[in-house]
Amino acid sequence: MIQKLNVGMAGLGRVGKFHALNFLERTPRAELVAAFTPDPAEIAWGQQHLAPYGVTLYDNYDKMLEHPGLMAVAIGTATSVHAEQAIKAMDHNLHVLCEKPLSVDIEVCKAVVQKAKTKPHLKVMCGFSRRFDESYRDAADKITQGFIGRPSIIRSQTCDKFDPSGFYVEYAAWSGGVFVDMAVHDIDLTLWFFGDDSVPKSISAHGITAVQPELKKYNDYDNAVGVVEFHNGKIAYYYCSRMMAHGQEDTTEIIGTEGKLTVNGNPQKNLVNLYSNAGITREVPPNFMGRFGPAFVREANEFTAACLDNTPLPMKLSNAVKAVEIGAYIQESLVTGKQIHFDEIGRRVQKAQL
Amino acid sequence: MIQKLNVGMAGLGRVGKFHALNFLERTPRAELVAAFTPDPAEIAWGQQHLAPYGVTLYDNYDKMLEHPGLMAVAIGTATSVHAEQAIKAMDHNLHVLCEKPLSVDIEVCKAVVQKAKTKPHLKVMCGFSRRFDESYRDAADKITQGFIGRPSIIRSQTCDKFDPSGFYVEYAAWSGGVFVDMAVHDIDLTLWFFGDDSVPKSISAHGITAVQPELKKYNDYDNAVGVVEFHNGKIAYYYCSRMMAHGQEDTTEIIGTEGKLTVNGNPQKNLVNLYSNAGITREVPPNFMGRFGPAFVREANEFTAACLDNTPLPMKLSNAVKAVEIGAYIQESLVTGKQIHFDEIGRRVQKAQL
Amino acid sequence: MIQKLNVGMAGLGRVGKFHALNFLERTPRAELVAAFTPDPAEIAWGQQHLAPYGVTLYDNYDKMLEHPGLMAVAIGTATSVHAEQAIKAMDHNLHVLCEKPLSVDIEVCKAVVQKAKTKPHLKVMCGFSRRFDESYRDAADKITQGFIGRPSIIRSQTCDKFDPSGFYVEYAAWSGGVFVDMAVHDIDLTLWFFGDDSVPKSISAHGITAVQPELKKYNDYDNAVGVVEFHNGKIAYYYCSRMMAHGQEDTTEIIGTEGKLTVNGNPQKNLVNLYSNAGITREVPPNFMGRFGPAFVREANEFTAACLDNTPLPMKLSNAVKAVEIGAYIQESLVTGKQIHFDEIGRRVQKAQL
Amino acid sequence: MIQKLNVGMAGLGRVGKFHALNFLERTPRAELVAAFTPDPAEIAWGQQHLAPYGVTLYDNYDKMLEHPGLMAVAIGTATSVHAEQAIKAMDHNLHVLCEKPLSVDIEVCKAVVQKAKTKPHLKVMCGFSRRFDESYRDAADKITQGFIGRPSIIRSQTCDKFDPSGFYVEYAAWSGGVFVDMAVHDIDLTLWFFGDDSVPKSISAHGITAVQPELKKYNDYDNAVGVVEFHNGKIAYYYCSRMMAHGQEDTTEIIGTEGKLTVNGNPQKNLVNLYSNAGITREVPPNFMGRFGPAFVREANEFTAACLDNTPLPMKLSNAVKAVEIGAYIQESLVTGKQIHFDEIGRRVQKAQL
Repeated sequence: MIQKLNVGMAGLGRVGKFHALNFLERTPRAELVAAFTPDPAEIAWGQQHLAPYGVTLYDNYDKMLEHPGLMAVAIGTATSVHAEQAIKAMDHNLHVLCEKPLSVDIEVCKAVVQKAKTKPHLKVMCGFSRRFDESYRDAADKITQGFIGRPSIIRSQTCDKFDPSGFYVEYAAWSGGVFVDMAVHDIDLTLWFFGDDSVPKSISAHGITAVQPELKKYNDYDNAVGVVEFHNGKIAYYYCSRMMAHGQEDTTEIIGTEGKLTVNGNPQKNLVNLYSNAGITREVPPNFMGRFGPAFVREANEFTAACLDNTPLPMKLSNAVKAVEIGAYIQESLVTGKQIHFDEIGRRVQKAQL
Repeated sequence: MIQKLNVGMAGLGRVGKFHALNFLERTPRAELVAAFTPDPAEIAWGQQHLAPYGVTLYDNYDKMLEHPGLMAVAIGTATSVHAEQAIKAMDHNLHVLCEKPLSVDIEVCKAVVQKAKTKPHLKVMCGFSRRFDESYRDAADKITQGFIGRPSIIRSQTCDKFDPSGFYVEYAAWSGGVFVDMAVHDIDLTLWFFGDDSVPKSISAHGITAVQPELKKYNDYDNAVGVVEFHNGKIAYYYCSRMMAHGQEDTTEIIGTEGKLTVNGNPQKNLVNLYSNAGITREVPPNFMGRFGPAFVREANEFTAACLDNTPLPMKLSNAVKAVEIGAYIQESLVTGKQIHFDEIGRRVQKAQL
Repeated sequence: MIQKLNVGMAGLGRVGKFHALNFLERTPRAELVAAFTPDPAEIAWGQQHLAPYGVTLYDNYDKMLEHPGLMAVAIGTATSVHAEQAIKAMDHNLHVLCEKPLSVDIEVCKAVVQKAKTKPHLKVMCGFSRRFDESYRDAADKITQGFIGRPSIIRSQTCDKFDPSGFYVEYAAWSGGVFVDMAVHDIDLTLWFFGDDSVPKSISAHGITAVQPELKKYNDYDNAVGVVEFHNGKIAYYYCSRMMAHGQEDTTEIIGTEGKLTVNGNPQKNLVNLYSNAGITREVPPNFMGRFGPAFVREANEFTAACLDNTPLPMKLSNAVKAVEIGAYIQESLVTGKQIHFDEIGRRVQKAQL
Repeated sequence: MIQKLNVGMAGLGRVGKFHALNFLERTPRAELVAAFTPDPAEIAWGQQHLAPYGVTLYDNYDKMLEHPGLMAVAIGTATSVHAEQAIKAMDHNLHVLCEKPLSVDIEVCKAVVQKAKTKPHLKVMCGFSRRFDESYRDAADKITQGFIGRPSIIRSQTCDKFDPSGFYVEYAAWSGGVFVDMAVHDIDLTLWFFGDDSVPKSISAHGITAVQPELKKYNDYDNAVGVVEFHNGKIAYYYCSRMMAHGQEDTTEIIGTEGKLTVNGNPQKNLVNLYSNAGITREVPPNFMGRFGPAFVREANEFTAACLDNTPLPMKLSNAVKAVEIGAYIQESLVTGKQIHFDEIGRRVQKAQL
């Protein structure tokens, strides 16, 4: 009989539930054996959806780490405890799949990476779901094969359907701001397509609060544009919004010296078009799960395979830090209204001499 | 702990392998416990991919039916043995999921339905994968909600990528012809969208052999167009082809008195577009698995749920017979070059009086 | 100074007005010098829109033919007088651009062609606007260049937006039926892409009256499907409808042994997309002028150039007859419910021997 | 007989030829009576294409202004003489249609506007062709009708097909830079959709030379991104490129609080799609004439109507200055690498206090 990876899930909120079900049902080589959440409502959900399949529920993270035979932890709790939980799991010699970001604090992110370096036998991955999306993978392959020459410009956006509940106002208090919370995906894609070694040269950003003026109290915005110029003669520009009427629209263009690739330039929920007196209409996924659901499944499977087979993970943990770091700089530029400059080894410089 | 459906897979050819892996890996409530194939190469594949997960392999179908605890059989063998195997499984009081068609012989099809009627506690389904496709489901919902008024015209095509191997020439010897083999899916969709009780009024068909003239020896064609007019004032027209250069293109339009729905009017493999000096290009799935893979997974899950929960199956077994029957009439019209007519209760009539 | 072609317009109905303005304003080498209509309302329109530019108005066709310096006539009157007016114009040694069809009566059509043969110095063209459409031209070029191998299957449809006024019911009294009135364009395209010498082998058709049951009194239909198989191993199949909710949708697919071309597979009015909570919507042209307006302009210009420079017309007059002839056969098959057969030189045969 | 507008064309280069032919052939209410160019090759072209239609050719601009009966001048000469020629034409009491920009020097632009104010009976327009494009007009109508709520974000790009000739390197010496030369269209659209009274609050820009490093000697770039934040809580961001492999791609998104409009989100040359073993491909217009040809025709017609009927022009001359002014600020930010700030009445301020 084959060996399976015994996984414990930390956090059963929206993303946590999804990860839990993916490890339970859609990851043949993994076995979800335990789940932790401090939230009684989430415990109740787990009793209904996980316990019947033999998953043990915990309301104490430390106790879950002691679950017999546990081999890996997937962390989908609040961002503020990601790092601490990841480090504890490593201390228990458990592999770690952690939702992005490791932290909104760069120093804390770096501490996780540091700890991972001391445990080279462990697989520690920060889950940037787009890395596992079939379309992004295809685009990456085509870039590698030279279809577009040298990638030079990236346009990438993370645009959510407007949520009138006000959730995102309070969320802004601790999210790190739109560029850390949303654009971090686009920044990670940039590192993928431009190369991990890309060093920012200058950064600018601008934002507005078109529909949620309350965001201003947290120095945040509901629509923002940021530009990162790199020392290798490349530019990435980002648009984040939480104001879409039509649904989720995460689009990326990679423009090379000899061609261009777009991913999700024509968003769509499925293959249906309705022809009516309004014209021709197609629907759009309402949220990131509608767009990236299969990518999360692939993430669970690839993480599992890397742990069991001791093969390399598809992305470096240090990139997760770098993406947050760049996001934080863009956010700073957004708030201060000043362009930020860096020298060729990434040290921040003043541009007073100009 | 939850109850699982113990499934045995009959046939490990192309579709059989796919079903087997779906029940093994992507159907949480099912357990693949056994698999049968008479083919040593397929047994070898099973030993590598199924046995390590506890699946027992059989080279004798009857013996697999005796597998302890077996509750259901999925049949993906050659069409010629579908009916016999389905009936044997029912004799063992096993639920049955059978690949389409039950048979290319209507009387044989009817025998399966007859047997199923004597075993009303069993779930017996003929798998028309498009019934489980998210886009077709969405179209069906929109029709039910009245988005297009009264469905009146259906255009539906099954178009395969050209296979230069010559496989389809020999296959034509026993496939029943393009309208039984390929258009049967489009006919099934027609019954879904026009209503199960739709009675053909007249049928015409025309075909050519554009790239595989050898098909003529089996009275078959590589491109064919058929039209079915129904007594309820509706028309379905079909195009089958095995000549596509670009890939699989199964498209359906449902045209109502107040609107139209298309499914897969713009085929695409994923969300990537390549902009090059040739223009803007997107790729297309190469085969039906690229298009309908997720539908097969949903089929396995819904069949399993119906068996375990004793809930109705999403489609009637008798439709599977009706689709083959209509397909055979179109094929007859194709071969004879004559229009065929039926009275209002479906009895064939001559139209000499006109 | 350059020579201009002095043109007289016969008929100022919907299409006639459009032709008149095209010759007046958008055909630099032509001069609209005269216009005829028996309709006082149309005369009034002409007095406002044409007379100020020096166009002489006539309520008598014969008198217009005597207009000093007249060199050509464009005929956009009722179909029933097309042929007579065309012949009269030729008798006056005038070039003729006649709206399609020459007549719904094949013998009358042939008389026009016969007359034209006696006047080889005259340019006589029946205007099939799609022949002048940039997209169809591009498709034709690509076929000629071998992009799709040997064209083998054509799917072509003429679908109008539903007109609730009842106009098309009365129109059916003399239109010749949907296949003569609407599909004649698709048949003409077929002759273009398959070759003028294509000889029908068999023809079938089916129709319904989904929204205008009154059409039955004229043996006509609001939705119809027809199939024409040719002796050169090719098939064309057509769909005509007057029931579209969304607008005009004239689509053509040319499927070759090595590829496929579509024209207007994704109808659209312009380049705008609206993203709203309904999804992503684009509008569609409401009528044939919205789709083919520029083609009519090009038609006027190319006809003018052929007359002035004595160069060949872009299409043969005999094709116009052939298209109507095939249309009439499809219409016959539609009404009788019988397949029609032809031998290799196009003579109709019975298929009793089968 | 109707009155026509007698027009003289200044400049017969690429755009000048196009304007000349539009006034000659596609503007029914205008008469092209004269054309000026200092270039012998262009004079030769005019002798072949214009003179036969009665157009008098001049190699001296001042002499053309004396042409008997001249009522208006269209200016399509080099940018450096636009302003001088426009002012001279006004001094002759001639209406003026001037290609964009009036000048790359703001003070010179303002002098033209000042002169126009002293001649209120004259129509003086700077031609921003996109204002006359049907799709942009449709988008503007939909915004006015409230389809997208309050426009808040604009993304707009002007992307040309790569020209390997090196032309654009020398052109950069006097073009004013990419944001003055290319993005000025996008800025003009911004003023249209956000309102003429929009006042910039801050501006950032970044650029690279990916394929034409020689541009650096003129402080210019082949790819550049600029962001303009306005005091009314709106942001426009622009991308200019001369590196496209596939053709011209000028795309605009207007994102409102309740929806989004895209113009040319799916570029295409015509309605043809080619299905081949590469997938599904459509072509793209190779240049701005392929995209905006009909808009230039409409521009000529609307300008003519405004002159003859003394009706308002569709756009304010002062906007043409404002667009260049903003373009020049973005260009400055691009070159200096510093964000630029403005107070609420548009005066430039330092942001040292932050």
